[in-house]
Formats: sequence, C-alpha cells, structure tokens
Amino acid sequence: MTAFSQWMADIQQRTESALDRALPAADIAPARLHEAMRYAVLGGGKRVRPLLVHAGGQLSGAEPERLDRVSCALEMIHAYSLVHDDMPCMDDDVLRRGKPTVHVQFDEATALLVGDALQTQAFQHVADAPIADDPRRQIAMIRQLAQATGSRGMAGGQAIDLAAIGQQLSLAELEFMHIHKTGALIRASINLGVQCGRTLTDEQMATLDHVGKVIGLLFQVVDDILDAEADTATLGKTAGKDAANDKPTYVSLLGVTRARQLAEEMCQDALDRLAPFGDAGQRLAELTRFIVRRQF
Amino acid sequence: MTAFSQWMADIQQRTESALDRALPAADIAPARLHEAMRYAVLGGGKRVRPLLVHAGGQLSGAEPERLDRVSCALEMIHAYSLVHDDMPCMDDDVLRRGKPTVHVQFDEATALLVGDALQTQAFQHVADAPIADDPRRQIAMIRQLAQATGSRGMAGGQAIDLAAIGQQLSLAELEFMHIHKTGALIRASINLGVQCGRTLTDEQMATLDHVGKVIGLLFQVVDDILDAEADTATLGKTAGKDAANDKPTYVSLLGVTRARQLAEEMCQDALDRLAPFGDAGQRLAELTRFIVRRQF
Repeated sequence: MTAFSQWMADIQQRTESALDRALPAADIAPARLHEAMRYAVLGGGKRVRPLLVHAGGQLSGAEPERLDRVSCALEMIHAYSLVHDDMPCMDDDVLRRGKPTVHVQFDEATALLVGDALQTQAFQHVADAPIADDPRRQIAMIRQLAQATGSRGMAGGQAIDLAAIGQQLSLAELEFMHIHKTGALIRASINLGVQCGRTLTDEQMATLDHVGKVIGLLFQVVDDILDAEADTATLGKTAGKDAANDKPTYVSLLGVTRARQLAEEMCQDALDRLAPFGDAGQRLAELTRFIVRRQF
Repeated sequence: MTAFSQWMADIQQRTESALDRALPAADIAPARLHEAMRYAVLGGGKRVRPLLVHAGGQLSGAEPERLDRVSCALEMIHAYSLVHDDMPCMDDDVLRRGKPTVHVQFDEATALLVGDALQTQAFQHVADAPIADDPRRQIAMIRQLAQATGSRGMAGGQAIDLAAIGQQLSLAELEFMHIHKTGALIRASINLGVQCGRTLTDEQMATLDHVGKVIGLLFQVVDDILDAEADTATLGKTAGKDAANDKPTYVSLLGVTRARQLAEEMCQDALDRLAPFGDAGQRLAELTRFIVRRQF
C-alpha cells in the first residue's frame, strides 16, 4: 500500500467514525427517522469530499478535528442530495452504494424527511463547535457552505439537470450545469478545508478556488466516462442510466476518447497550479491524479 | 384600527418586503426554480413567526433589520416544510394559502427542490450579515435555528406525525408531537428575536423559552379547533383534513369545548409569566391573546 493509499484509507475511516458520532443515535426518538438518516450516510461512499477537505487542510496546516467537522457537514449534504435525487419524482433509482435506496428500504415520506433533516444536521454541525480561529470566519464558512448547496449551487444544478433531460446541450451549457450540480460542493470542500487552518493570501485562495473548480468538472467528466463504460456491480449504483434517461453527458457530446483527453488536460492544469505550493499541495495533487484514474 | 392591528400589519408588510429582497429574483438562472421558490414564500401566510420574532425583539430592544433577517429565515424554513408536507408522498394536498400547492402549480420534482433550496437559503440568510452583537452569539443562534428545524425539532415532529396516522395517541404523546412539529419553530422565533438585542438574564431567557413553548402548543390547539370548525374558503387551505386523514388532534381527544378551555388556560399561563417584563412584553402578550382568538 502506498503512502497515499494509506492516507486515503485513514481519512475514509476517520470520516466514518466522525459521521457515526455526528448523527443522532438510532434509538433516539424519532427512531425510524434517525435509523434512516444513518442508513443514508454511513457505511458507504468514496468520501471524495472529506478527502478534498483534508487535502485542502494540508495547505493551511489545519487541525484534523476541524476538518472532520467540515467533512461531516459536506457528506451529510451530499447524502441528502442523493436521497432526494433517487426519489421517484426525480431519478427514480433503486440502488445506491450497492444498497436499496432510502425510499425503497424505508418509504417515500421517510426519504423526503431524511434528506431534509440531513441538510439541517449539516448546518447544525458546522455551528456546533469552532471550525476556524475567528468566529467571523466561521460565519463566512457557513455562508459559503450554503451558497454551494442552494439554488445557485448544487440544488440549482439539479434544477438545470431536470430541465436538460431530452434537450440538446452545448458543451458550455453542460459545463454550466455541472459547475453547479456536483462542482459547487467539490469546490467548497477544498475552500472550506483550507479555511480551517491559517490564513492564506487572496491570490493563493483564488488559485485554489480555480483548482477546485477544475477538479469539480474533472470529477464529472470521469463520472460520465465510468457511467458509459462500467457495469452496475462495479459502480455500486445503476450504470448506463444517463443514456437511458436521455441525459446529455460529456461522453454523449464528445465521445469517450475525447472525454478522456479532456480529463487529462484538466488534471494537468490543476497540477500545474498546485506546483508552487510545494509539499503542502502534495495530497491534493495526488488526489487529483487519483480522481482521473479511478475505476469506480 | 387598534395600535396592535397596525403593528401586525406593519410587521407583515415589512416581512413581505424583506422576503422579496432576500429571495433570488425570478429571472436569475435557474429561473423556474427561483420563480417557484418565490411562489412558495411570497404573497401569503399569516407571518406568525415574524410577528413572534419582532415581539421577542421588543423584549431586548433589538434592531428591526436584524429581526427582519431572522424573520425571513424562519419564514423560508416554514415555507419549505409546507411545500414538502403538501407533496403526494406526505399529506398530498392541493391548496395552500388559497393557491394551488407548489407541486400542483409546478411539478413534484420542482417542489422537492424548492423545499430543499428554501431551507438552504434560510441558513445562508442568517450567515449573510450580523444578527447579534457578538459573532459567537450569531453562531449559537444558527445552531439553535438548526436544532429547531431538524430531526429533533420540526422534521422530527413530521416523522412522529406520519407514524401517528391511524394511531390512538394519549394527550402526552400528542403534546410531544406538537412540541416538535410546530412548537419548535415558534419557540425558536421568540428566542431568536430576543437574542438579536441586548443580553437578558438566564432566568429571563428561561421564562421566555417557557412562554414560547406554551405559545407553540396553544397555536396548535387553536389550529385543531379551526380545522374542525372552519370551512376551506375561510381557512385558505383544505379544512377538516385531519379528521379525513384519521390524524389525532386536540379536538378528537378532548372535544371542542375542552380544547377551547385548554387554550384559554395556556394563554393565561403565558400572560402571567410575561407580566414581570412590563411594557417590553406588551406585543408578545397581545400576540398571545390574538393567537387564541384568531378565526383563520
């Protein structure tokens, strides 16, 4: 196992453990809701956002406990979006992370409340203990988390995605959708991780924000390639569903070969911009390379 | 028009105007989502929570602009809960505030996203500008808002309500449900309004928290009476639906006469506890009386 693989495994494990502590216990009333919230969040997922938070935190020497807190909030928001996205009125999907989706395992009303309550829990979690040296910065971080999550971030991206089904999109329109739908939260992961530690210069923050934007798109390009190529068992979720749903993707617009090439170019752009940070940017650079080469 | 009626009309008007500014414009992308968010929040509602926020603010001499900000956040959360509650997998209701519900006027997927994005917007709004003198207190207020909204507050109450359909509940169980479902947000409205201004003693805060709890239950008792007695046109939402849905209510447990009596007792309890605050508690006392006597 390489040092990077070991680091990934460590972050994934500590995130799982932090989430387990952050979520209400399954025997606290209302027990069925809490059980379903835990089902939606625990025991699965690649924990890409926590990996990005911790890689961001390396750039500013942030305390691991703060990074865990921010990671949990991002994972709760990510999980809430998956639970709602899988519901019959959205993507109507039955499989997620190799398990039945929440509305299948429980019921639709519970899935609705699980998503709602997970979003709330995320905001409660970042207001529950310090995540930055200055409380004013903590408030700004809560605001940034909300911006990335809401109608001009992730939820807005979902709305654009819905409107795009069966439509012909240009590459620019597809990019606009993904910058919101998955990009906003990935970008926020790095930015928030960095802000848990010492203050960097505005120029450094701007560079890292750009890197976050690139990684967000890169992640989606690779997702589209995997969705087109992989089978359901490897992916742990229903494969090929974008094509089945007549959704525009990087692969449907560019073909697999050109999409792969685009991913490599984006990866190189991110690595070039991270180079001046030296060793402090090592984990984020490794993670970027990993995201391009991942098979799941 | 009495001074109190004028005060109510003023708060309702300034809340409408503050919400109009706080919500993204309907021509900002994604336009349909923003249009639907505005549809769900603007131009209706009794604005009970903003009235409570401003009445709470009177007790600590809080700045009206801060109270508007907190009011908007509470109304967005209240509106999100109504949009999701009206969806087919929950109460499946077609009428709200005299208008078609969001999933009827738009579609189910949009209603889901509207609720999600309104919740986020609420948290963004209370992190967007100061609502307290001390940023540490602002963070605590964001945490309290989340506690009142989430799985151990409003959303938890919804889950308990779902589980109660067709069940025989005791009065204590019914109270437990309502303390969460509607009570938590009403209680938070007063508490947060107070905290926008100067710091009160712990004893005063504890008294006002109790008053908030009583008003929350009182509000529900009166709601149950109105639901049992009023017709749909007066109510602006489907009347008699609790009985139709076989939901336990104060009226089904106690009968109308005893429920009315309970409401009067609760009102007197709240007024007695507010008396030592003198003139500073005037609006909250008047509002409590109004809540008992309202016809809608």
